[in-house]
Amino acid sequence: MLLLQNILHDGARVNIFIDGQRIRRILPYPETEGLVAGETVDCSGKAVIPGFINMHTHAAMVLLRGITEDVPLHDWLSRIWDMEAKIDEQFIYWGTKLACLEMIKSGTTTFNDQYWFAPFARDAAVEMGIRPYISFVILDNFARETAEKQRRKCLKLFERSLDWSEASHLAMSVHSVYTVSEEMILWANDFAREHGMKLHIHVSETEKENRDCMKAHGGLSPTEYLDSLGVLGPHVVAAHSLWLSDHDVEIMGRHRVNCVHNINSNAKLSSGYRFRYNELRDAGANVCLGTDGAASSNNLDMLETMKTTALFQKAWRNDPSQMPLGELMDAATVNGARALDLETGEIREGAIADLSIVDIDNSWFLSPGSFLANLVYTAHSDVISSVIAAGRFVMRDRVVEGEDEILAEARKVLRQIR
Amino acid sequence: MLLLQNILHDGARVNIFIDGQRIRRILPYPETEGLVAGETVDCSGKAVIPGFINMHTHAAMVLLRGITEDVPLHDWLSRIWDMEAKIDEQFIYWGTKLACLEMIKSGTTTFNDQYWFAPFARDAAVEMGIRPYISFVILDNFARETAEKQRRKCLKLFERSLDWSEASHLAMSVHSVYTVSEEMILWANDFAREHGMKLHIHVSETEKENRDCMKAHGGLSPTEYLDSLGVLGPHVVAAHSLWLSDHDVEIMGRHRVNCVHNINSNAKLSSGYRFRYNELRDAGANVCLGTDGAASSNNLDMLETMKTTALFQKAWRNDPSQMPLGELMDAATVNGARALDLETGEIREGAIADLSIVDIDNSWFLSPGSFLANLVYTAHSDVISSVIAAGRFVMRDRVVEGEDEILAEARKVLRQIR
Repeated sequence: MLLLQNILHDGARVNIFIDGQRIRRILPYPETEGLVAGETVDCSGKAVIPGFINMHTHAAMVLLRGITEDVPLHDWLSRIWDMEAKIDEQFIYWGTKLACLEMIKSGTTTFNDQYWFAPFARDAAVEMGIRPYISFVILDNFARETAEKQRRKCLKLFERSLDWSEASHLAMSVHSVYTVSEEMILWANDFAREHGMKLHIHVSETEKENRDCMKAHGGLSPTEYLDSLGVLGPHVVAAHSLWLSDHDVEIMGRHRVNCVHNINSNAKLSSGYRFRYNELRDAGANVCLGTDGAASSNNLDMLETMKTTALFQKAWRNDPSQMPLGELMDAATVNGARALDLETGEIREGAIADLSIVDIDNSWFLSPGSFLANLVYTAHSDVISSVIAAGRFVMRDRVVEGEDEILAEARKVLRQIR
Repeated sequence: MLLLQNILHDGARVNIFIDGQRIRRILPYPETEGLVAGETVDCSGKAVIPGFINMHTHAAMVLLRGITEDVPLHDWLSRIWDMEAKIDEQFIYWGTKLACLEMIKSGTTTFNDQYWFAPFARDAAVEMGIRPYISFVILDNFARETAEKQRRKCLKLFERSLDWSEASHLAMSVHSVYTVSEEMILWANDFAREHGMKLHIHVSETEKENRDCMKAHGGLSPTEYLDSLGVLGPHVVAAHSLWLSDHDVEIMGRHRVNCVHNINSNAKLSSGYRFRYNELRDAGANVCLGTDGAASSNNLDMLETMKTTALFQKAWRNDPSQMPLGELMDAATVNGARALDLETGEIREGAIADLSIVDIDNSWFLSPGSFLANLVYTAHSDVISSVIAAGRFVMRDRVVEGEDEILAEARKVLRQIR
C-alpha cells in the first residue's frame, strides 16, 4: 500500500492510501486508522488533482509537429497525409512513447487515440504506464476495396484485443463523414454497439465540412446525417463538435453524445473558436477536452488547453463569468471518465488511482485565489511533480523512466521520415 | 568577459562574447579571434533568444492575483481599487520583487510598469537585476486638489530620478482618459516631451471606455480625443489599443504610437480580443506585447502571451497564416526596445546583453519545425534555463538568488492585506 501523506485535497490536508490500482481511503491528516503503508511519500507543500483525460488525440503525430505551420486545415491535412504515407510501426511506437512522455509530464493518465498501426501505439502506452483507448481508424475514402481491407484488418485487431489486460482498451473509429462511406460508418457503429465499444469520429471540425456534408446529404449537417443513420448515442465520442446549429446541439444532447473540444488545434488552424459549451452542457451532452494531435495544437498539454478554453469562452461570449473553473476541471477529467466508462477522473475512495501531485510551494500558489484559479490561470504544467497511473508512479519528481532513450529513438525515426 | 560557447543563434552554433553590459562579438563556433573570456559557459544543447520586454504591466499587482476572479472589468476594477487603498511601500517592494522573480523565470529583462509607490518598485527591480521603466501614476479622478497633490509628488519623483543610474528609467504616466482630467493629461504630456520621457496611458481597453469618452468629448474616441489634445507621438505607450476604429488606427499609425496588446488580460476580463494587429502595423504604429498586471492575466509570462496572441489572431481573422512568428517575436522584444529607446531586444554585436538561454535538449525542440515554432507554440517558459540582463546572470539553471526570502516576505505582506 502507498500513502500520500499530508497532501492538499479539496482545501484540506489529507492522507491518501492507495492499494493496488485504487484509492482505498482518504483520511484527514494525520489520521491513518491503523492502515500501514509499504511506502509513504511526504506530500507537504503538495496538492493532488485527478489525472487528466485527453479525449481526442493522434498521439504519434507528435513526430509530425512542425512539418508544416500556419496554413489552413485542408492544406495542412494534405501535407500531413503526404507524410503519413511514409510512416511505419517504428514511427508509431516511438511517436506514441514520445507523446506519452509529454502527456505524463503534463499530468495526463488516459488518452483517447485515433491513429494508424494501433497495436504499436498500444504497446508504447502500456509500457509507459498510462491508459490508451486506441482504435483501428476506418478511412476508406469511399472506395469499396479499401473498405473491405479495412474491415478485415479491424476485425483482426478486435480478435487480438480480446487478450489485452485492462491496461488498454480498443474503440471503434471512423475518421469523419467526409472520408468514410455510409456503409462503413454503419458497420463500425453496429460493431461498436454489439461489443460495447466506443465510436470515435470527427464531427463538424470546420465550416467547410458542414457545407460539403449538406451538399452531399440533402441539406443535413454532419450531426443530422449521423443521427439519420442511427449512429449517435452515449457510445459516440464526437471530436470537435465545433460548428453546431441549435438543432445539432439538441441532437447531441438528446443522444448524450460525448463532445470533445480541442481549442488549441481549432484556433491555430483557424477552424473556429465559438464552441457551444453552455448549450451542449444544458442540452445534456457530455463535454470533454482534448489536445488533438500535436502536429496541429502544438502540444499535448491539458492544463494549457484548459486555460485557452477558458480564455476563448470568456472572450467570444463577452462574459468573464463563463466557463467556470469547476466545470473546466470536470471537462478535463471526470467527464472523460464518464465517456469511457472508467472509474477514474476523481479523487475518491474506490476510484482508480490516476492522479498528479502538484508542487504548490512556489509563487503560482501564493495567491489567496482558489487552488483551481492558481493552477489553471497562473501555473504551467511543470508544477506537476509526480504522476500516478493506476496506482503506480509513472513520473517522480519530474523524472520519467526511459526519457533519454525515447528522445534518441524519436530523433532516429525523424531522420528516416524527412 | 563572458563567453557563451557553442550556442544556437539564428540556426547556427556561435560563440557570443559579452563585455560588461554589451554583446561584443558573435563568432561562428568554435572561432574566438583570440578573445579571452574570464568565464566560459558551455551552451551546447542550448539556444539564445533576446530577453522579453513586457511593455505593459502593474508588477506588484501579482500580490492581488486571485483577489477576485471571473467578473467583468469594471466590477473587477472596483474590487481591486478597494484592495489598493490598503497597499503600502512594503507591498510594492515585495510585490515587485515577486513579479521580477516570475518575469526572470519566464525570460523578461525589461518591463514597463505603471503602479503606485514607484521608488519602491524601482528599488526592487534594480536589486533583482532587471530593467524597470517606472512612473508616478496620475489618476486625479477629475478632482483639482488631487491633481495638484499628484503633480507635486510627480515632480519630486522626477527630481529624485535624476540621480538614478541607467539601470532604471522614469516615465510619465496618466491612467486613462476616463480617470484623469484634461489639464493633467496636458501637463503630463508637456512634461514628458520637455524631458524626453515616455508617456504611458491606457487607451480603448473596453468598448465602454469608448462609449463614455464619446459622450464626454463630443463624439471623439479616446484616440481622437488624445489626438485633439496634441498628446500622441512616438513617446506615447498606449496600453491595450483594443477598440480602435479605422480612423483611430490611422491616427495611431501617423503618430508612430507604441500600441501594447495584452491578450490574456483582455480575454480573461472579456474586454475584447479583436486587436487590429495588421492594420496598426501597416499604418505605421509600433506594436508591442504586454501581460498587464497578474491580477487580471494571471501571470507575467511573455511566452504564454505570445502563443495566446497568435491563437486569437489566427482564430478571429479566420486565417492560420496571420500573426507570423517572426513578427510575434519582434513584438515581444525589439519593438519594445524601440518604444523605450533601448539598444536591446536583439542578439547583435553592440547591443545590450539582455538574453535568455533556452534548453533545447528536450522533446519540445525535437521537431523539424522552426526554432520559433517549437519555442512559441510547443514549449513553456520553463525551457528558459538562464537569463542574462545587462551582461549579468539574473538566473542560472532556473535558480534566482533570494527566491525563498521573496516568497516568505510576499506571504507576510499578503497576510497583512487580507
